[in-house]
Amino acid sequence: MKFSVTVTLKKDVLDPQGKVVQNTLQNLGMENLKSIRQGKYFEIELNDNDQIKAEKKVDDMCKKLLANLIIEDYKVNKI
Amino acid sequence: MKFSVTVTLKKDVLDPQGKVVQNTLQNLGMENLKSIRQGKYFEIELNDNDQIKAEKKVDDMCKKLLANLIIEDYKVNKI
Repeated sequence: MKFSVTVTLKKDVLDPQGKVVQNTLQNLGMENLKSIRQGKYFEIELNDNDQIKAEKKVDDMCKKLLANLIIEDYKVNKI
Repeated sequence: MKFSVTVTLKKDVLDPQGKVVQNTLQNLGMENLKSIRQGKYFEIELNDNDQIKAEKKVDDMCKKLLANLIIEDYKVNKI
């Protein structure tokens, strides 16, 4: 069973890495660029067959390691 | 207009960062974990109103800066 997890900075947290990407793209001549924010992406494969159990496990992983809940949000999707 | 971009390593490219995350999760007691691969995630906001033009622009950004097409794949979604 395969899940994707995206971890993004919360709305009010500054994102210097995204800002650098944004400035670079603007310097490359990209117009109409309003904002870019960068996050992390994980593809997680589990051997479980029970979807509810597996989702619970992925949720646990996010809370314990993948996301810092003070400054980040995460989203889990089955793929 | 808002797009999400995920950049992932190609299937046959080693992912040491993901491997470290995987080992750490296993040390934390997570069972049935088969594999984890890590990638990058971008949320891009454009001022364009024409979706086709905007998608073309995001595609350009990926090719020019966000993804290294030799070792990475990217996916663009409208959000």
